Amino acid sequence: MREDMLSSILNELNGTSADIEASAVISTDGLMIAAVLPQTLDEDRVGAMSAAMLSLGGRTSQELARGELEQVLIKGDEGFVLMTHAGEEAVVTVLAKPKAKLGLIFLDVKRAADSITKLL
Amino acid sequence: MREDMLSSILNELNGTSADIEASAVISTDGLMIAAVLPQTLDEDRVGAMSAAMLSLGGRTSQELARGELEQVLIKGDEGFVLMTHAGEEAVVTVLAKPKAKLGLIFLDVKRAADSITKLL
Repeated sequence: MREDMLSSILNELNGTSADIEASAVISTDGLMIAAVLPQTLDEDRVGAMSAAMLSLGGRTSQELARGELEQVLIKGDEGFVLMTHAGEEAVVTVLAKPKAKLGLIFLDVKRAADSITKLL
Repeated sequence: MREDMLSSILNELNGTSADIEASAVISTDGLMIAAVLPQTLDEDRVGAMSAAMLSLGGRTSQELARGELEQVLIKGDEGFVLMTHAGEEAVVTVLAKPKAKLGLIFLDVKRAADSITKLL
């Protein structure tokens, strides 16, 4: 039931913009909670990389006096990865196309992360 | 001489916005090339965290089909860390305040990174 609600939030998130290619909710230790991914992307890989980035991002934020980690954004020449904390226990990871309008995606992901936090 | 020119680019970058608190040029293996940092920040720490984030960011970008890494942005509740590749061998790391206008900082950092790439 809760799983369906999480999937429905992710489906809605992917639907808000044609530039969002995939989204997932992952526990901070890297286990998949819910995912809407294209078949070309491996769930375990998305989970593992998200957890690793979140862990190092959190340490970097603290070591460089930026406080508690909220988001990590990775920009590659073929697109973006955006990771946003959903409460203490989970992260929402979104993959977007290179031409994505980041401001809009930040907003939509923040909103989805807030809804997900309430469900977990 | 080249060191002076690098410092001058960083000083100019820090001057473009009151929201930029620090900037540095770091080799991809984490050694400091040039830095304009407040005394509260340790050069070695900035170098080490930048190199670690860049390395994991590059791997994440490739594993999640986002191509070659261009930038990593970390958002903490007390500010931002923005890392941008300057050529193959170096990265420009900028620390900014929480209320920073990201769009403007992205532009200014990109411009500085281009100038730095030509010097290295």
